[in-house]
Amino acid sequence: MPTAMRLTDPMFGSPAVLDIFSDAGTVQRMLAVEAALARAEADSGVIPAAAAAVISEVCRDTGIIDRDALAQAAVAAGNLAIPFVRQLTAAVAARDVEAARFVHWGATSQDIIDTALVLQLGDALRVLDADLVRLGQACAALATTHRATPMVARTWLQHALPASFGLKAAGWLDALRRDLGRLDATRTQARALQFGGAAGTLASLGQTAPAVTAALARELDLAAPVLPWHAHRDRMAEVATTLGMLTGTLGKMARDISLMMQTEVAEVAEPSGPGRGGSSTMPHKRNPVGCAAVLTAAVRVPPLVATMLAGMVQEHERALGGWQAEWDTLPQIVTLAAGALRQMGEVVAGLQVDTARMRANLGLTHGLILGEAAMLELGGRIGRLPAHHLVERASQRAVADGTSLRDALARTLREEPAHAGLLDDAALDRLADPANYAGQSAAFADAAVQAWQSALARRQSS
Amino acid sequence: MPTAMRLTDPMFGSPAVLDIFSDAGTVQRMLAVEAALARAEADSGVIPAAAAAVISEVCRDTGIIDRDALAQAAVAAGNLAIPFVRQLTAAVAARDVEAARFVHWGATSQDIIDTALVLQLGDALRVLDADLVRLGQACAALATTHRATPMVARTWLQHALPASFGLKAAGWLDALRRDLGRLDATRTQARALQFGGAAGTLASLGQTAPAVTAALARELDLAAPVLPWHAHRDRMAEVATTLGMLTGTLGKMARDISLMMQTEVAEVAEPSGPGRGGSSTMPHKRNPVGCAAVLTAAVRVPPLVATMLAGMVQEHERALGGWQAEWDTLPQIVTLAAGALRQMGEVVAGLQVDTARMRANLGLTHGLILGEAAMLELGGRIGRLPAHHLVERASQRAVADGTSLRDALARTLREEPAHAGLLDDAALDRLADPANYAGQSAAFADAAVQAWQSALARRQSS
Amino acid sequence: MPTAMRLTDPMFGSPAVLDIFSDAGTVQRMLAVEAALARAEADSGVIPAAAAAVISEVCRDTGIIDRDALAQAAVAAGNLAIPFVRQLTAAVAARDVEAARFVHWGATSQDIIDTALVLQLGDALRVLDADLVRLGQACAALATTHRATPMVARTWLQHALPASFGLKAAGWLDALRRDLGRLDATRTQARALQFGGAAGTLASLGQTAPAVTAALARELDLAAPVLPWHAHRDRMAEVATTLGMLTGTLGKMARDISLMMQTEVAEVAEPSGPGRGGSSTMPHKRNPVGCAAVLTAAVRVPPLVATMLAGMVQEHERALGGWQAEWDTLPQIVTLAAGALRQMGEVVAGLQVDTARMRANLGLTHGLILGEAAMLELGGRIGRLPAHHLVERASQRAVADGTSLRDALARTLREEPAHAGLLDDAALDRLADPANYAGQSAAFADAAVQAWQSALARRQSS
Amino acid sequence: MPTAMRLTDPMFGSPAVLDIFSDAGTVQRMLAVEAALARAEADSGVIPAAAAAVISEVCRDTGIIDRDALAQAAVAAGNLAIPFVRQLTAAVAARDVEAARFVHWGATSQDIIDTALVLQLGDALRVLDADLVRLGQACAALATTHRATPMVARTWLQHALPASFGLKAAGWLDALRRDLGRLDATRTQARALQFGGAAGTLASLGQTAPAVTAALARELDLAAPVLPWHAHRDRMAEVATTLGMLTGTLGKMARDISLMMQTEVAEVAEPSGPGRGGSSTMPHKRNPVGCAAVLTAAVRVPPLVATMLAGMVQEHERALGGWQAEWDTLPQIVTLAAGALRQMGEVVAGLQVDTARMRANLGLTHGLILGEAAMLELGGRIGRLPAHHLVERASQRAVADGTSLRDALARTLREEPAHAGLLDDAALDRLADPANYAGQSAAFADAAVQAWQSALARRQSS
Repeated sequence: MPTAMRLTDPMFGSPAVLDIFSDAGTVQRMLAVEAALARAEADSGVIPAAAAAVISEVCRDTGIIDRDALAQAAVAAGNLAIPFVRQLTAAVAARDVEAARFVHWGATSQDIIDTALVLQLGDALRVLDADLVRLGQACAALATTHRATPMVARTWLQHALPASFGLKAAGWLDALRRDLGRLDATRTQARALQFGGAAGTLASLGQTAPAVTAALARELDLAAPVLPWHAHRDRMAEVATTLGMLTGTLGKMARDISLMMQTEVAEVAEPSGPGRGGSSTMPHKRNPVGCAAVLTAAVRVPPLVATMLAGMVQEHERALGGWQAEWDTLPQIVTLAAGALRQMGEVVAGLQVDTARMRANLGLTHGLILGEAAMLELGGRIGRLPAHHLVERASQRAVADGTSLRDALARTLREEPAHAGLLDDAALDRLADPANYAGQSAAFADAAVQAWQSALARRQSS
Repeated sequence: MPTAMRLTDPMFGSPAVLDIFSDAGTVQRMLAVEAALARAEADSGVIPAAAAAVISEVCRDTGIIDRDALAQAAVAAGNLAIPFVRQLTAAVAARDVEAARFVHWGATSQDIIDTALVLQLGDALRVLDADLVRLGQACAALATTHRATPMVARTWLQHALPASFGLKAAGWLDALRRDLGRLDATRTQARALQFGGAAGTLASLGQTAPAVTAALARELDLAAPVLPWHAHRDRMAEVATTLGMLTGTLGKMARDISLMMQTEVAEVAEPSGPGRGGSSTMPHKRNPVGCAAVLTAAVRVPPLVATMLAGMVQEHERALGGWQAEWDTLPQIVTLAAGALRQMGEVVAGLQVDTARMRANLGLTHGLILGEAAMLELGGRIGRLPAHHLVERASQRAVADGTSLRDALARTLREEPAHAGLLDDAALDRLADPANYAGQSAAFADAAVQAWQSALARRQSS
Repeated sequence: MPTAMRLTDPMFGSPAVLDIFSDAGTVQRMLAVEAALARAEADSGVIPAAAAAVISEVCRDTGIIDRDALAQAAVAAGNLAIPFVRQLTAAVAARDVEAARFVHWGATSQDIIDTALVLQLGDALRVLDADLVRLGQACAALATTHRATPMVARTWLQHALPASFGLKAAGWLDALRRDLGRLDATRTQARALQFGGAAGTLASLGQTAPAVTAALARELDLAAPVLPWHAHRDRMAEVATTLGMLTGTLGKMARDISLMMQTEVAEVAEPSGPGRGGSSTMPHKRNPVGCAAVLTAAVRVPPLVATMLAGMVQEHERALGGWQAEWDTLPQIVTLAAGALRQMGEVVAGLQVDTARMRANLGLTHGLILGEAAMLELGGRIGRLPAHHLVERASQRAVADGTSLRDALARTLREEPAHAGLLDDAALDRLADPANYAGQSAAFADAAVQAWQSALARRQSS
Repeated sequence: MPTAMRLTDPMFGSPAVLDIFSDAGTVQRMLAVEAALARAEADSGVIPAAAAAVISEVCRDTGIIDRDALAQAAVAAGNLAIPFVRQLTAAVAARDVEAARFVHWGATSQDIIDTALVLQLGDALRVLDADLVRLGQACAALATTHRATPMVARTWLQHALPASFGLKAAGWLDALRRDLGRLDATRTQARALQFGGAAGTLASLGQTAPAVTAALARELDLAAPVLPWHAHRDRMAEVATTLGMLTGTLGKMARDISLMMQTEVAEVAEPSGPGRGGSSTMPHKRNPVGCAAVLTAAVRVPPLVATMLAGMVQEHERALGGWQAEWDTLPQIVTLAAGALRQMGEVVAGLQVDTARMRANLGLTHGLILGEAAMLELGGRIGRLPAHHLVERASQRAVADGTSLRDALARTLREEPAHAGLLDDAALDRLADPANYAGQSAAFADAAVQAWQSALARRQSS
């Protein structure tokens, strides 16, 4: 049997989440569901306690499942659970023929596959949660440290106005705070047992169905839903969309950072490390390998989310294609999001910030980005329109002469008797310092940090 | 100027939402934002009250904006707000030259475009909310009426087991309940003012920035966010994903209904009406035109959601492409979701249900779908394995002889001395009635209706 | 290291293609590229022939590469080729230190990764080609056999008019013919060597660059492109789109077949086999497992194609995210298309066709689907409008009385003195036979078969 | 009726193509199809020549169709053609009641809708073709002019090696050449008449079907396909994918150009013009508005292509959703591609190139990007490994001391007796000139121009 594609897994995934969604991880959770089912049915008096004990015991050993045989048998069966139950039954029978009769009692393939997936998602979302909090903390630290570190704000990839690096980090942070909120809601939503039997009626369990359902949910620490949801996949889609938005946030951060890392900009750099992003023939290069992995996820995840949404259009009580399309897609989404989160966590935690270069870059337009500041200052004295004309003239002059706006403005004012003396050297110097025109940058940075900390505090208290 | 594509709008949209996102609807809300800005700035002492009054007054008339000129000028400007402000300023100047100086004071194009969009979304989500509640009520009525109406459950498009039509409706209903919850959360999330000035620092407003922001949010009945979100688009993406999931739910319903409407199945029919889904040359046809429109939305929306997620990867303080990609995409998503909701509302409210045909279809496999029931009944008496073999033999016999499972089972039992008399005619008849093997169908239907009503009650009390 | 996801691979892939894109398959082709490079450079006098011989020899053994170590080292390196070259160099050095100096001479990571991918695609497209021809032949056989087998044509999932099953198969066939043409064009397009050195200039090879390029292309049996294409990915995107269309064709076939397999329709069935699509508890079920796998591919592939197209927007001479997004996406597309093709090949080759049921289903509307035929027949005698009214009245009567259109028409004609005797019993019987109103069904089926055979003949002669 | 969304059309579309896909453009082509059908049927003796003449005449006036009424009536009908035929019939009847009987004879709604779309696509692809050739010519001019203009090649957004600006333009050009080839193939493929009657059998035309089909194809200058293709949509999907790849190429160009336009890079600028990309408050800004529009298309088109591919999975002889999903999607794809092409055409034709800045940027790493060149030069004299160590040491020294690699290398060589005198000043100067290490840049540029011109020549001669 061919080995699966996996060489690129470590690049784009996180170890813990790859492990959860590995074949072994899947089989382990399918076994956990069967074991819990047996115990729940024994508790409810549906199957003998002795049988449940044996089943439960056998399910502890993932080695009983031959994964290659499973994968091959699934082709004809159409899903993994049919051959899985066959193998499990054989393994139980090898121990206790009688107990084997009660394996998978009253359940259907989809119950096992879906509930195992729910368990995987629960475990994975816990990993994501921790990584997200860690990344948020790193952003909060940047926002705090650099709340007033002057940096140019860029619109359309052009210098626009002064701002602070802390403001940029605060923007990231506040988006992560919203992602965290969505992750909380989604985790709750997705903790739902799927248990419906062959067609979602649990007819095979007769009157014991409610009791078994409740016991099974308890066993697996899941919520018992209002009714089986096998053909209604919004819970799974919500995991996908929530992680789609998270990946979008991370992609935006990676875009920002990789642009700031350009040779011509050089304001920040990803942390260095052995073999990390270097090039032996090009010693000057520090490749943004972390950002590249995140941007890769940001390219790949949105269409995968579309797959999950498109798959929701399912036929009757079990779909042809819509459900099966989830099987590889949702794990990919979770894995890519987890990998992006881990990579961005490393990037931000070790980010090298060159505040001197930030300030130097602010000066690239020789003060032209301070035109608005000058206009406002002058406007307060001579009216908005005259101020506008003055600054416009000075700006054109600065561009033409290759001087700074400050000097061009000084000269322009000097030449017009009406305005001579309007701004003295100290005023001009104050105007020419971008740090004086950062507006609410620091205040916004503070606000974002505070909102983040409040959100964390609320979570801990709940 | 060429007319825009719109012939298909009424087919796939809902009138109210098309109106909100029409060009006129957009311009009207951009004017509303400029008017509110002027008033907020007057309140905060930033611009003269008289100027604000004039601006506010002029903004009431959408006729001041020449939309064709606006559209053409936007090509060079790169967005609608630049020529829009120019036209507005001219209109104000025609009334009061002094007031014209204060139009759009301290704001940037994106502030106007984004906040106008937020207003449109608020209005549209209100429409969707009402339509969703209405559709849910119609589903709840079906679930209640048909809680025990026998119907076959189908997996893989094959008959599987008996269930009830109410259970199917309950599945739809419970998904809609979750959609309603997501819609509530999203509406709250998306009520956020965007106000940041040219680069998100509000530097142009100096110390008055916080006061103006608060006043502007109040004026527009929006929340003031922690910080401007111009380059962080998760709020908009969440509207898209929430509606993506809703459209998925609707698509699943349309898939079910259109399959049930097939000539060979004929269990339900869309409501009829003048010109609706008929065919003059084929009088027997009742085309599922409502379902087709919903399924169209379910094909189109998921990739549009992917566009919104992909667009989140934005450059610095204003994006190249990512933001602009939202402009036509998000309105399309909202319009398609609204249209699908309206169409499905009409379909379900007027659904013609043929319970006799449902029961007749249950009999198509001559009782084979009751094999599980027979196995369980016999298993209780002679053990699971012997019961399994008996029923398997009887099933094969029924298929071979073209008789019912009931009769084949009776004959099989009669032929084996050990089992003769195991099931008398009454027992066999009871087994052969699919209504007796519907499991939790009715109970699940009741539970879904109750959960829906509780959710509505919770909303009203909050 | 976690095992990769692969349990579902056999379900959705084809063994040969899974093998090509397995980790081992990737490494094998990367080695093949390095070996060919060494030989090409020796041929061109750039490196010593002895070194090339050693490198070439070492590259024959895929065992020299530790894939787990490779995957882990790729995280920091950002791609597979950097640690791959390191491992290869070490392996060569273990044999001949001098030769090791010439490993990967003048090449860059992307040259190896891209060209190895091109080799994989070439191999995979050959497999697809053979499977596509085989599937086409099976469709051609169906189209021929059933050119005149009466079957109802369905529009909007409603019975519309009579047609033939051969016409349906011919529609599939003609689409496959176009897919074959696109596959030919794409295979040619995608046979392009990528070789550009660190930045696409081949500066490292000085004046020998053209000769090495030509020799390398020869060695690998690839075309030498006009210039390196590392940052222009349309060739790879074209593979994706071509397979996207093929998957769409297959999905349409699977949709048709799975609908025809419904319990209520039962016109065709997938081939049966041990463990295939059966259900032990539901012996009447024949699950369309092949169609489900194809429909799964048809849900998953379109968004993956979007990923490939979105990834084309690459930065300068090597992308951040756009290129890397291809790495797992293109193999998935090829694998899913290959799997769908294999599955559909088995489904069509073994399709069980129930022509009696097709004919019986034609009668479900009691002849109403022949209204158009009756109108045309009568129209020729009494004018179109009177004919229309007559048939409309008869149709309503047939529906109301639960009789056939034939009988209702006979009665309607009898009751109107003007039309009595217009159609005698023989004429009515002829009209009532759907086989007489199949139009060009057989002719179209013949035409499609002929076009297919011509296409195959053209290919063989070229 | 609400006005349609269209304010943003001119920004993202091209006037000619917007016109083709406007409502008026659609109606005009639907009328053209009905007129051609009438003439074809008169030619074939199916309907009276007089009737055909009247129908043909009436169809010349698009004013006979009330588009608002059409749009509203389409909701219940499920498509535009049903109410369209009703309006057309009424208009013909107003002129000649007898002729009205023959309107739309033997055709079905989809025949009209699809064939009208084919006409629109033909017209639009002609526009795209001309714009694509024009853009290619502009790129060819850049490639020629700047074949040897030194410019840095960037990988991972980091300076990598010297190259030429002509090489970059050549990369664009060669991709456009491939796009042109695909456009040619697609235009041929998509020129297919759709004509099948109610279910694709043309039964309504009896034996005259082939003759009418041939005549209709002739009338419309389309190819008659092997059989009707109403439910097989690969031809339409191919238009989508071809334009998807073209948009990808354009997006790559826009990404490159917008990155080169960054304030910190400033190597090129979009052409300026009145109101174009300027900012009154920020006079230094030259916003890449053209690139932004192209990048917007590059974000939006890929998911729309996925919609087209997903829609291919159609039910039987007419789909529920899959077909209807095309109606707004394909026009959007064509419009966005056309708009992107037009925008990029303007950008490249008027591109302002700052070769001095390109050269200056080459020096930003103080020669470190020439390390490979130095290694090769020295390697030829002292062996590759010693050379590697030497250059590595010099590079680190250059970084540490803030000097150039040239000077650091000179000093390093001087300090080592073994190497003193290895490179004299002239040799060092030659090494330090990036123009001397551009490899095949100019040759590749020439080759791309030549390949382009050959392709154009081949087209003209065919």
